[in-house]
Amino acid sequence: MWYTHTMIFFRNDYSQGAHPKVLEALINTNLEFSDGYGEDDHCRNAADLIRAETGIPDADVHFFVGGTPANFTTIAAFLRPHEGVIATRASHIYTHETGAVEATGHKIITVTSDDGKLTPAHIEEAMLEHEDEHTVKPKMISISNSTETGTVYSKAELTALRKISKEKDMYLYIDGARLGAALTAEGNDLTLKEVASSVDSFYIGGTKNGAMFGEAVVITNPKLKTDFRYIMKQQCGILAKGRLLGVQFEALFTDGLYFALAGHSNSLAKKLRDGIAAKGYGFLTNSPTTQIFPIIPLKTVEKLEEKFLFYRWKPIGEKDVCIRLVTSWGTKEEDIESFLKEI
Amino acid sequence: MWYTHTMIFFRNDYSQGAHPKVLEALINTNLEFSDGYGEDDHCRNAADLIRAETGIPDADVHFFVGGTPANFTTIAAFLRPHEGVIATRASHIYTHETGAVEATGHKIITVTSDDGKLTPAHIEEAMLEHEDEHTVKPKMISISNSTETGTVYSKAELTALRKISKEKDMYLYIDGARLGAALTAEGNDLTLKEVASSVDSFYIGGTKNGAMFGEAVVITNPKLKTDFRYIMKQQCGILAKGRLLGVQFEALFTDGLYFALAGHSNSLAKKLRDGIAAKGYGFLTNSPTTQIFPIIPLKTVEKLEEKFLFYRWKPIGEKDVCIRLVTSWGTKEEDIESFLKEI
Amino acid sequence: MWYTHTMIFFRNDYSQGAHPKVLEALINTNLEFSDGYGEDDHCRNAADLIRAETGIPDADVHFFVGGTPANFTTIAAFLRPHEGVIATRASHIYTHETGAVEATGHKIITVTSDDGKLTPAHIEEAMLEHEDEHTVKPKMISISNSTETGTVYSKAELTALRKISKEKDMYLYIDGARLGAALTAEGNDLTLKEVASSVDSFYIGGTKNGAMFGEAVVITNPKLKTDFRYIMKQQCGILAKGRLLGVQFEALFTDGLYFALAGHSNSLAKKLRDGIAAKGYGFLTNSPTTQIFPIIPLKTVEKLEEKFLFYRWKPIGEKDVCIRLVTSWGTKEEDIESFLKEI
Amino acid sequence: MWYTHTMIFFRNDYSQGAHPKVLEALINTNLEFSDGYGEDDHCRNAADLIRAETGIPDADVHFFVGGTPANFTTIAAFLRPHEGVIATRASHIYTHETGAVEATGHKIITVTSDDGKLTPAHIEEAMLEHEDEHTVKPKMISISNSTETGTVYSKAELTALRKISKEKDMYLYIDGARLGAALTAEGNDLTLKEVASSVDSFYIGGTKNGAMFGEAVVITNPKLKTDFRYIMKQQCGILAKGRLLGVQFEALFTDGLYFALAGHSNSLAKKLRDGIAAKGYGFLTNSPTTQIFPIIPLKTVEKLEEKFLFYRWKPIGEKDVCIRLVTSWGTKEEDIESFLKEI
Repeated sequence: MWYTHTMIFFRNDYSQGAHPKVLEALINTNLEFSDGYGEDDHCRNAADLIRAETGIPDADVHFFVGGTPANFTTIAAFLRPHEGVIATRASHIYTHETGAVEATGHKIITVTSDDGKLTPAHIEEAMLEHEDEHTVKPKMISISNSTETGTVYSKAELTALRKISKEKDMYLYIDGARLGAALTAEGNDLTLKEVASSVDSFYIGGTKNGAMFGEAVVITNPKLKTDFRYIMKQQCGILAKGRLLGVQFEALFTDGLYFALAGHSNSLAKKLRDGIAAKGYGFLTNSPTTQIFPIIPLKTVEKLEEKFLFYRWKPIGEKDVCIRLVTSWGTKEEDIESFLKEI
Repeated sequence: MWYTHTMIFFRNDYSQGAHPKVLEALINTNLEFSDGYGEDDHCRNAADLIRAETGIPDADVHFFVGGTPANFTTIAAFLRPHEGVIATRASHIYTHETGAVEATGHKIITVTSDDGKLTPAHIEEAMLEHEDEHTVKPKMISISNSTETGTVYSKAELTALRKISKEKDMYLYIDGARLGAALTAEGNDLTLKEVASSVDSFYIGGTKNGAMFGEAVVITNPKLKTDFRYIMKQQCGILAKGRLLGVQFEALFTDGLYFALAGHSNSLAKKLRDGIAAKGYGFLTNSPTTQIFPIIPLKTVEKLEEKFLFYRWKPIGEKDVCIRLVTSWGTKEEDIESFLKEI
Repeated sequence: MWYTHTMIFFRNDYSQGAHPKVLEALINTNLEFSDGYGEDDHCRNAADLIRAETGIPDADVHFFVGGTPANFTTIAAFLRPHEGVIATRASHIYTHETGAVEATGHKIITVTSDDGKLTPAHIEEAMLEHEDEHTVKPKMISISNSTETGTVYSKAELTALRKISKEKDMYLYIDGARLGAALTAEGNDLTLKEVASSVDSFYIGGTKNGAMFGEAVVITNPKLKTDFRYIMKQQCGILAKGRLLGVQFEALFTDGLYFALAGHSNSLAKKLRDGIAAKGYGFLTNSPTTQIFPIIPLKTVEKLEEKFLFYRWKPIGEKDVCIRLVTSWGTKEEDIESFLKEI
Repeated sequence: MWYTHTMIFFRNDYSQGAHPKVLEALINTNLEFSDGYGEDDHCRNAADLIRAETGIPDADVHFFVGGTPANFTTIAAFLRPHEGVIATRASHIYTHETGAVEATGHKIITVTSDDGKLTPAHIEEAMLEHEDEHTVKPKMISISNSTETGTVYSKAELTALRKISKEKDMYLYIDGARLGAALTAEGNDLTLKEVASSVDSFYIGGTKNGAMFGEAVVITNPKLKTDFRYIMKQQCGILAKGRLLGVQFEALFTDGLYFALAGHSNSLAKKLRDGIAAKGYGFLTNSPTTQIFPIIPLKTVEKLEEKFLFYRWKPIGEKDVCIRLVTSWGTKEEDIESFLKEI
């Protein structure tokens, strides 16, 4: 269903269409003729802009319509049949992709993490159980930044994962559905360039940060580039009018729009977080990004649900509920104020 | 690359963006909040419009971003692992989807057809070679209408396929990437309602007929509906902002836009075909739709290539070339005139 | 490598060839001509013997060369692509089949169990996390009896699993690699007939109980029988000289040989267990079957390793080691006595 | 069913058990204890014997229970997801493995061949249709020697295929279910060493030439060796009592037994062929090996079916039938004489 204008939306960050500047770019190019399947000048130009921002001049950049196909396609392309991926049990690839990774034949080796982040200790733990040809071979580490519960990796944490991935001859990959939010979060000490130079591949999420739809997979490890487009076509189909994705990422990576939108979302999330904390409520995770998880009495939740749209995340004890509030580029200052007034 | 405005484009029908009315609908709904993954009112409304047009009130309708994922997802959803699909060797699923169907584990059993169409005799031929558990079990017939070479199925031909599919306990499916063109072609005697009632599933192609992107898979056989969305999520990912697809199909199925656009494309293709024939050239296939395949001397082709964009399909003898010319909703009367003047 | 006769073997139960009576049957039938791929009279007769023992006259029986192919083939045959299997994290299908199940496209949903056994509470727990089409659909419960750590299911436990599997519309399957040991264990209150009537499918392990090689998959749920041989051929190949398997199971299910061999193994394991306990050592699990897991000081383990072959299972604290000792049909009374003398 | 002793068997070469010398080896080693999964000294020794015979001292040798798993496992191990195999439309992998190769995700690109053999022209033809990422990438050539209709490759033919496989950067693989028959055929000019040095991998068929069951996959291309056992375990399960396979190949590759058995089968087939030709009948293919395809009047076929077991291959015109007669190590001189007397 769609929602009345009197309800304020904190349910997710993939509901509204494109940021006006992105929409304008789509409108302006609507009648152009171009080569299909991403082999047009908009895609090439967008890839160049991304290569410049990542500081990896020979990175390969491929545009996808969504995060799930970006994830399972990279895994299918990078791994041999007996190789598996280490990820947290809460990771999107494990929990919310309907077994898409397994459907490509690969096992996800899960570890449990309290804050949603993987550490070298997790990798060591997983390696211990995977010693020989009677088990799959752990070959890829997949992390999300920001994570599924809003936390972010520090430079030290990412560096440590990079170190162990090299030691163990494993690939390091980032599901960057909310990479913009991570890199503009309060306390974040990573740049896009540092991310790009620390991993074998990652994707820059557009759907949740200003694009109508689209994600940009960046491959920095030369070994992983070979024939990637074959796998892409086979696994999820390459968008016929690939230009649509190029046009959008051109807009997002012009004049810093991508980071500006993420910064806006983060700043409103911070305002919301600070306001809720000021009222004495606690949080499930220490999230500095656009997803926050306050713990609130059930009665208050029920009252809030009359004016605001959001998910109940999970019950906490008998009387409290952890809810998830999400801000996005379309969230307004006044939405936050309304919420803080009501809580 | 993109093309200078002085070149006229007959290369394909998936180059320009959305028809203005479809684009307008996307603009008007851009800032709406709605449920994700196709569970919004635009998708529901578009599905209702399609159900009304097909005359199958309880059909299931699912929206995909492209034709390749629509094809391999339906095959993955409908078949058990040992079941295969019969199709022509020239079919898109066999030739131009990078083994996407096989990547889901299913064999495509190919037969050779001169005019791109399948007949009951082809089915009988394929059944003969697949008798027991040492071969795959033919369980689905996949045809394209219009076909990959522009031909269309008559009512009698479709009825005959339906009959044998029932006799052999097989599903009948139509890849409808260009279904609009087929149903508005000169000489066509099939309606959308007749198509819908003759098959187990088919898709209505939007990408090549006015949508920015998108196809609507229609499932009429109740047995095939169960858990389809699970398979959809697993195989290609469901578009997070599924509304985008609903909005476009609402526009296409309002006031007959879908058929009007296909009719426009067909009428310009006819004008082109008649004009070329009038100059004495022959054609590879007897196509009444938007893809035509004239056979032209190489020298003439080279001259045409200075002003027009199109594909060389294949050499014919030493001196001639079969070229493919494609019209679309964005093709203009004057484009045809220019071509006929030059040839 | 192979082992000097002075070393005594407790390493596993799949090392020696066939029990003499099984070997004799293979020798006696060696020069027969018969139809291939399991369509011969020995296979038919063996299936009849198994149907009689299970009390399910219309059960389907299929012979496999090993347990891993039996497991992944049944899963591939029974499930649609988006359906998953619930099993313990220690289950063989999850830990020691190199992702064979995932390679067929299916997720194994794991739960943690201290004693290796699944309970209805585990099923409820798994269902909670799998609510809609964004996750796989739990459709099959796979248990091992005896389990990977030697424990066995009681009649009450199996009945409870059957109840919940029906309530949740899920299949119940038993990996019976060591089903003989389970059904002849001290304290076991289940019969083969009760097992057969409580599940949708299970297999009777031959490789670890007297056969040279081979397992018999029994399918009792009519819905799961359709086209099983197609999937069998596709997933692991059907043994060309299928008769070899029929001949072996004829021998095993003649005059109660199958249960006699399992009983022998269990009784020697009991003797070993009682003797070790009498010396004051504890055990990792409460196993009444052929695999026992005593916890022994490292020094003693090192000394035992000079005369006996067995696996160290895992370190316990600083000074102790849990070892695994396995008896089989070829284990001798005197082997047990030797061990007990040395410990 | 099994057959009365009065019927003479020419139906196939995989019906009787093991040649007496192979059986004896299994009996002699039956009570040995050894490491499982092919990591025992018999397997190592058998592999050494095979390496010596092939003249490739660093070849990898892996033992499989049957030909279908050998074929689909090597394909799954050698290829990336988007890579396909070129084979004849009559090849076993395409026609009689129930889509097992496609079930691992790979397309078989078929070409039509009158004599069952692939040529460089076939490869060129297949390459033309597979140009870019919208099609699968041909990466492997799979041939059978002897072929499915009994013909054999000459040294010149194999060399030509090797040359084009290198030019096109493709792997060359031989399905050697009947390799023994090929290499001992009248007119054959290839040795096992030449075969081994001309391909990237092949298998030496045991099931159809003296083994109870088993095939030996030989990998000569170092690039294809990595982690092969992982894929083997995942795709078809490694036989727990792997020793059984090692023991059999030790016997077959001791004192030239393997070639002696194939030579015996070939010489009886030749006698049969010559005798039938002498009576004026023609043949479907020019087979110098153990499968022959005489064309015989239907009335004669019906009469022969009273005393002999064989397959009708296909009708030829109105009155004749092509039948398949197969000899094996267990065929006797007098069986041939009986047949020639009756025809």
